[in-house]
Amino acid sequence: MFNSILQTIIQWAISHGIKILAILIVAWIILRILKTIIRRVIKSVIGKTYGIRDGVAVEKRTATLETVFYSTVKIVIWVIAVMMIIPEFGVNIGPILAAVGVAGLAFGFGAQYLIRDLIAGLFIILEDQYRKGDSIKVGDVAGTVEEINLRKTVIRDVDGVEHHIPNGEIKIASNRTKLWAKINLEIGVAYDTDLDKVIKVLNKVGQEMAKDKDWKDIIIEEPQALGVNEFADSAIIIRVSGKVKPGEQWGTARELRKRIKEAFDKEKIEIPFPHRVVIQKK
Amino acid sequence: MFNSILQTIIQWAISHGIKILAILIVAWIILRILKTIIRRVIKSVIGKTYGIRDGVAVEKRTATLETVFYSTVKIVIWVIAVMMIIPEFGVNIGPILAAVGVAGLAFGFGAQYLIRDLIAGLFIILEDQYRKGDSIKVGDVAGTVEEINLRKTVIRDVDGVEHHIPNGEIKIASNRTKLWAKINLEIGVAYDTDLDKVIKVLNKVGQEMAKDKDWKDIIIEEPQALGVNEFADSAIIIRVSGKVKPGEQWGTARELRKRIKEAFDKEKIEIPFPHRVVIQKK
Amino acid sequence: MFNSILQTIIQWAISHGIKILAILIVAWIILRILKTIIRRVIKSVIGKTYGIRDGVAVEKRTATLETVFYSTVKIVIWVIAVMMIIPEFGVNIGPILAAVGVAGLAFGFGAQYLIRDLIAGLFIILEDQYRKGDSIKVGDVAGTVEEINLRKTVIRDVDGVEHHIPNGEIKIASNRTKLWAKINLEIGVAYDTDLDKVIKVLNKVGQEMAKDKDWKDIIIEEPQALGVNEFADSAIIIRVSGKVKPGEQWGTARELRKRIKEAFDKEKIEIPFPHRVVIQKK
Amino acid sequence: MFNSILQTIIQWAISHGIKILAILIVAWIILRILKTIIRRVIKSVIGKTYGIRDGVAVEKRTATLETVFYSTVKIVIWVIAVMMIIPEFGVNIGPILAAVGVAGLAFGFGAQYLIRDLIAGLFIILEDQYRKGDSIKVGDVAGTVEEINLRKTVIRDVDGVEHHIPNGEIKIASNRTKLWAKINLEIGVAYDTDLDKVIKVLNKVGQEMAKDKDWKDIIIEEPQALGVNEFADSAIIIRVSGKVKPGEQWGTARELRKRIKEAFDKEKIEIPFPHRVVIQKK
Amino acid sequence: MFNSILQTIIQWAISHGIKILAILIVAWIILRILKTIIRRVIKSVIGKTYGIRDGVAVEKRTATLETVFYSTVKIVIWVIAVMMIIPEFGVNIGPILAAVGVAGLAFGFGAQYLIRDLIAGLFIILEDQYRKGDSIKVGDVAGTVEEINLRKTVIRDVDGVEHHIPNGEIKIASNRTKLWAKINLEIGVAYDTDLDKVIKVLNKVGQEMAKDKDWKDIIIEEPQALGVNEFADSAIIIRVSGKVKPGEQWGTARELRKRIKEAFDKEKIEIPFPHRVVIQKK
Amino acid sequence: MFNSILQTIIQWAISHGIKILAILIVAWIILRILKTIIRRVIKSVIGKTYGIRDGVAVEKRTATLETVFYSTVKIVIWVIAVMMIIPEFGVNIGPILAAVGVAGLAFGFGAQYLIRDLIAGLFIILEDQYRKGDSIKVGDVAGTVEEINLRKTVIRDVDGVEHHIPNGEIKIASNRTKLWAKINLEIGVAYDTDLDKVIKVLNKVGQEMAKDKDWKDIIIEEPQALGVNEFADSAIIIRVSGKVKPGEQWGTARELRKRIKEAFDKEKIEIPFPHRVVIQKK
Amino acid sequence: MFNSILQTIIQWAISHGIKILAILIVAWIILRILKTIIRRVIKSVIGKTYGIRDGVAVEKRTATLETVFYSTVKIVIWVIAVMMIIPEFGVNIGPILAAVGVAGLAFGFGAQYLIRDLIAGLFIILEDQYRKGDSIKVGDVAGTVEEINLRKTVIRDVDGVEHHIPNGEIKIASNRTKLWAKINLEIGVAYDTDLDKVIKVLNKVGQEMAKDKDWKDIIIEEPQALGVNEFADSAIIIRVSGKVKPGEQWGTARELRKRIKEAFDKEKIEIPFPHRVVIQKK
Repeated sequence: MFNSILQTIIQWAISHGIKILAILIVAWIILRILKTIIRRVIKSVIGKTYGIRDGVAVEKRTATLETVFYSTVKIVIWVIAVMMIIPEFGVNIGPILAAVGVAGLAFGFGAQYLIRDLIAGLFIILEDQYRKGDSIKVGDVAGTVEEINLRKTVIRDVDGVEHHIPNGEIKIASNRTKLWAKINLEIGVAYDTDLDKVIKVLNKVGQEMAKDKDWKDIIIEEPQALGVNEFADSAIIIRVSGKVKPGEQWGTARELRKRIKEAFDKEKIEIPFPHRVVIQKK
Repeated sequence: MFNSILQTIIQWAISHGIKILAILIVAWIILRILKTIIRRVIKSVIGKTYGIRDGVAVEKRTATLETVFYSTVKIVIWVIAVMMIIPEFGVNIGPILAAVGVAGLAFGFGAQYLIRDLIAGLFIILEDQYRKGDSIKVGDVAGTVEEINLRKTVIRDVDGVEHHIPNGEIKIASNRTKLWAKINLEIGVAYDTDLDKVIKVLNKVGQEMAKDKDWKDIIIEEPQALGVNEFADSAIIIRVSGKVKPGEQWGTARELRKRIKEAFDKEKIEIPFPHRVVIQKK
Repeated sequence: MFNSILQTIIQWAISHGIKILAILIVAWIILRILKTIIRRVIKSVIGKTYGIRDGVAVEKRTATLETVFYSTVKIVIWVIAVMMIIPEFGVNIGPILAAVGVAGLAFGFGAQYLIRDLIAGLFIILEDQYRKGDSIKVGDVAGTVEEINLRKTVIRDVDGVEHHIPNGEIKIASNRTKLWAKINLEIGVAYDTDLDKVIKVLNKVGQEMAKDKDWKDIIIEEPQALGVNEFADSAIIIRVSGKVKPGEQWGTARELRKRIKEAFDKEKIEIPFPHRVVIQKK
Repeated sequence: MFNSILQTIIQWAISHGIKILAILIVAWIILRILKTIIRRVIKSVIGKTYGIRDGVAVEKRTATLETVFYSTVKIVIWVIAVMMIIPEFGVNIGPILAAVGVAGLAFGFGAQYLIRDLIAGLFIILEDQYRKGDSIKVGDVAGTVEEINLRKTVIRDVDGVEHHIPNGEIKIASNRTKLWAKINLEIGVAYDTDLDKVIKVLNKVGQEMAKDKDWKDIIIEEPQALGVNEFADSAIIIRVSGKVKPGEQWGTARELRKRIKEAFDKEKIEIPFPHRVVIQKK
Repeated sequence: MFNSILQTIIQWAISHGIKILAILIVAWIILRILKTIIRRVIKSVIGKTYGIRDGVAVEKRTATLETVFYSTVKIVIWVIAVMMIIPEFGVNIGPILAAVGVAGLAFGFGAQYLIRDLIAGLFIILEDQYRKGDSIKVGDVAGTVEEINLRKTVIRDVDGVEHHIPNGEIKIASNRTKLWAKINLEIGVAYDTDLDKVIKVLNKVGQEMAKDKDWKDIIIEEPQALGVNEFADSAIIIRVSGKVKPGEQWGTARELRKRIKEAFDKEKIEIPFPHRVVIQKK
Repeated sequence: MFNSILQTIIQWAISHGIKILAILIVAWIILRILKTIIRRVIKSVIGKTYGIRDGVAVEKRTATLETVFYSTVKIVIWVIAVMMIIPEFGVNIGPILAAVGVAGLAFGFGAQYLIRDLIAGLFIILEDQYRKGDSIKVGDVAGTVEEINLRKTVIRDVDGVEHHIPNGEIKIASNRTKLWAKINLEIGVAYDTDLDKVIKVLNKVGQEMAKDKDWKDIIIEEPQALGVNEFADSAIIIRVSGKVKPGEQWGTARELRKRIKEAFDKEKIEIPFPHRVVIQKK
Repeated sequence: MFNSILQTIIQWAISHGIKILAILIVAWIILRILKTIIRRVIKSVIGKTYGIRDGVAVEKRTATLETVFYSTVKIVIWVIAVMMIIPEFGVNIGPILAAVGVAGLAFGFGAQYLIRDLIAGLFIILEDQYRKGDSIKVGDVAGTVEEINLRKTVIRDVDGVEHHIPNGEIKIASNRTKLWAKINLEIGVAYDTDLDKVIKVLNKVGQEMAKDKDWKDIIIEEPQALGVNEFADSAIIIRVSGKVKPGEQWGTARELRKRIKEAFDKEKIEIPFPHRVVIQKK
């Protein structure tokens, strides 16, 4: 009897065992190949995008993405391999497929947000939309990026509040510190002011500040008055605009405002309060 | 025994090998045909649309779209071919299909945004809705287009903020610099002003500016007063409207405002402050 | 041996070849029939709708819709035919169906917006909701229609901005220039004015303008004061309303406002500034 | 040989032809029966609803709905019949079903809005929510109904703008001219006015207008002061309310406002301007 | 031959006819049973809920719901029966199922709103959320209920506008006339008023009104001053609150406001106008 | 022949009858087991949560949830049992499954809101988020809970309006009366006031009230001035904050406001009206 | 006969019993393995994240997550095992699968929100976005975290209101007390103030407060004036900014405001009321 069992096992091993072995080997080979492909694709994509700013962190990102993709592929391939091996033992995988299918679908309904986040995150990283340290704006939230990963972006706003934003919630990612930034001041002057003089004063303030040793490395294009932007209720609005290094726009604007105020005081140009004409009746 | 194995292989080769070869050849032929079809369709569509503006970049776009479509078709065709070959080795592809199906569905839930983006992007490029360098407005964000690809549009706004907008988020794409633009000023004058005189002055300012050597290449139609647009609380609003080259609307409007102010000062026409009638009681 | 192969081919040709030929012929016949049906249905629908305005462009639209529908039907019919022919060569189309099914579903999730756009566009054209040259309003965007096709509508607003609106985004299409338009002015007069006199003056201005040779072809119904629309804070609001040719409502309203102002000046009727009663205390 | 072919055809005709004939006959019988059922159901439903207002247009609507439902049913029945006949010719309908299924699903995603529109339209017509000529409000759009069909409602607003509204976009249909309408005026009087006198004056104005020969056919319930609705900043608000014929509410309210103003002038009741108590300091 | 056909029919009748008969009988029995179950369940549910208010209309509602549910069940059961009978005639129901399935799915996408409406309506009626004659508020629309059925609620607002609201659009149903209602007045008094005196006056007005023969049946709890609700810009806000019969809250509040005004006039308590402190400069 | 029929029945009874009996018995056993499991799970979960507040109503809730879950399980088990028994009678359940499947899917689209409501309700009850008698806020609606069940929450607001809210519409449930509540007053004082004195006075008012015999049982932490919360336009805003018993926050705040007013009057601290600096020109 | 039954049972036991036993054993082994894997993965993930703040509660969280995941896996594995065992008793599991499938789908539609909540909760805990005791802001709700679990977060706001927020409703989680916080005051000074003096005074107040023994442990970076943030209508706005310990930002800001007010009073710097220039006419 022992003999017959042995024979059965041998027969099984010949007819099924070889097949199982083949499945395992093929799965392993496919994995090897996919690993190489993934690496090459990521390297080529990352390489293209990252030439724009600088070469820092390229290596790290490549590694991260490789790990993520390779893990996903590994799980998928081995699950398929296992499902192809199971029937060789005479087990019907129908129930497993059905149970997993229903569970997968139920999970899928809820997990779609997670997948959306990951896809969004993938493009944020691949396209280098923003990096750690950049100042970005997402919907109503603005601040400095503290951390980016595939699922979420963490930013700190000006009050030190830490916002955790799933990447899929980022409809429009607005990077405020990409290569350069602009300052735009809207200065209101009284309706009876000489506009040419105002513009001359504003341009002079801009020029002097751009030559100042504290600011000349920060200012890329000196702030200049662009002209009359609006006839407001009580003031004529002049726009002043300049280009500065990224992240320096707020400090530069504050300083420029102070200098304009001082120049206006000296030149007797008035920033008017709200005006009202009153007609007395009865 | 070696003979019998050889015979088996030969038999397999005859019955299955030929089939596999046939599948591979047919797949390759179909790909060749589809490649030609894709090229022709894209060329004809692009050709039609791009006659409107100019011939620049047609070649580049054609190439990009060709690559994208051909890659997609290539993947689909080869996957089908592989799936048709696998059963020839006696392997049941049921589990593979099931696993891939569930994974595909789960991914599909999350990836629908990505596909939506790509379809939207396809039409933006095909229909030439806007190009690199155009000034567009999308929802609450407006700026100059820095980059367009199938998935997203990158624009820089007036503060230098770089906005990354997935194309699917662009419900209405508003191009502010397509062939020409208009300037529309709403000028408020006092209720006791002679309207005919105001209109004459405004029209004269418009004419003179349109003849000015600095502006005559920019202004397509000279700014003219259209009439009384509104009886506002404290002023009668006159609309002035003109046509200019795309991208020049803001600069032209600023200059026009300045000239109107100077003309009004000369002609003693008042841009009124808010008025209030006050009745003293008790 | 050559004979036996020939015989096999002949046998195959008899058993399968005839079937394939039959499939091709039937597909071609069905296409012919559907072509005729499509043409007739479109012609009848277009015919009915377009009697309302005029006969222009009916031919062109009929042709466009025919092409679109016929192309769709052609693709569907030939795909079915090919799928029915493939099994005759002994090829299992299961994998193809599965691959195409998953891809189709994944694409379907993202493409639903595109299909929605096309269906919406179909009805816009069929029902003649608006045409090239009409002035329409869609959500927050208003302007003149520059182009309509099945997928999108392009409009230019008053600032010359070109808006590309996918037809599916058009929830309510508001046509401002369909056969006729109305002007509605809300004129505020002082609380101590004689209302009967005001109404008489307004009506007279309306009558005279409607008789004016420049305006009599534009005005369909002369502008008349409808009565007291509101007791506002500082003024009694009188509504003036008239009917004009489509597209002329803005120009007519501007002229009417100017004439009312002049008549009021002559008749000493005041358009009041905001009033405030002030009680001095302590 | 000719004989054997003939025999084959006869055999086929006996075994399959009869079946095909039977299918066609049964399909035709089912259609006849369904036609009668549809007619009866619609007549009974329409009959019930339309007793409320009047008998006009019942015939026309019944006919329209019959056509729509019968066409739908006809297409479904014949498609089923054709699909049941095809296999009799030895053709596998699997590919057809699969192709149509995928196309149907893809289309279904986009067409759900269309179906939603049709279902909504069905209830608008069946329940007689509004008719051509009624003045309705849908979301932010209000106007007179120019056309209703299963898919959409067309309304003209007070500016003559024609709005095309898909019925599915109509969440709440508000009919402003169903059997009767009400006018509600909020009249502000000074804080130091005798409220009893004000109410007496308002009621008298309402009574006199309701007896006026121009208005007595329009006013169903004479406008009466309901009492003190609010202590506003500068005025006590009295509400006046009355019932009028549908569509007459705006004209009646305008006339009533004018009469109240004249009565107030006669009785020296003041409609106050905004008040402010001012305390001088320093 | 006639004999053999007869025999065939008899054989068919024995083998299939009995089965068909059995299916019909069983379907009929199941329907009978379900009818009884439906009646009992509805009666028990309705019975429980309707004890809260009164016994009116219970019978009618029970009948309506019975009809609706029984009709649905009847259609489902007979459709199943027919589908089980068809194969007995040797007809393949696959195509029918497929066609109906695709149509059903396509319809289901659009009809989900209808089903949502019906489910929502079922609970409104079962739970007696509101009835004909109640005054309810749904989103931005408020008025008196004119009609409720499974699909929609019709309400008339204070301007006589008839709103048709699909029950599924009713997120929160707010019944303003359920058993009792409250009145809440916010009365502003000057900052230099004696608060104790104000509260005493307000309470006295409330007490007197609650004892008045016209109002004592309407007022459940006499209106009392609750205290200082807010320090507003120019006034101290006192809240007065009382309980009245449902539907009487608006009339009672109007009368109470009038009485408070009269009492304040008598007691020289001032309802202040907006105050402003003005500092003259230069 | 009778014998043969009997024999057939006996054979059927042996081969199928036993199976049917077995199915019924197993179904019954499974139900018993599930009943016990359900009871234990609910008791353990409810037990844990309800330790937080008090032991009231635990029994009743346990019973309610048990009934709901057990009924659901009972229906599912018996439906499965019936479907397993039907084929034993030689009936094909395919059509039943198909019909029920399509109906179930169509219903499922619409019923998802109902299921969402029930799941949300389950957690509200299990987690004891709020109870009958608590004052809660849900979106824009706030009031006292009158009833909670698995599907909806009924609340009465301060005007006596009864709101029926499906539990699924409750995104954030805000319980205003859980264990304790806080009062927060923002008191504005003039810019020239001595802040230290104001804070001393406010703290003294808080202390005295906390010691008052009417209020000492209600106030948990005496109201204290926290400091300068804002430099407003015309006033410095001081925040006063204290802890009270749940439901007493509104009455306590009203009394506190009155006492602060009286203390301020005594100490000559001014709650300022809006200020404006006026500069006379021309 | 007894013998033959016994024999049947033995045969069944040999052919099926062994299989059942094998299934049970394999299921148990797989569970053991998965348990170890789950523990390791959680420990490694938790370990990485929690290094950032501190080691507290790591153990507890690990245990919680382990329980949740292991329970889920246990249920899935045993359900699969049971479904694989059932057919061994000759029972067709088709109906069970179908019934469970439809029920599962129907439930899945409604339960997707629950699953979304759980996934969101998982990441909140794993990533340590916030903890019990942190002050967070979620949409319009802000307060202190009282409890976090996989499904929901409970927070108490400043009024003591307890908000129950399902984790899936938390789009952006904003932690206001992570490691540090910032204070940002916007101080308005009169237009004619010496800005350099104002900045000096503000900086001095900040320095002194940072050195104060009550505050030096709380303030991380002393509050400093950053410059002119805005030219407002009636004031120049100076921003003052500093860094403090988490949770201390509100108290510190209140104290700083008080100190600034006192310093301004001493230095005669004015925080201006709203200004208005008034021009008298007629």
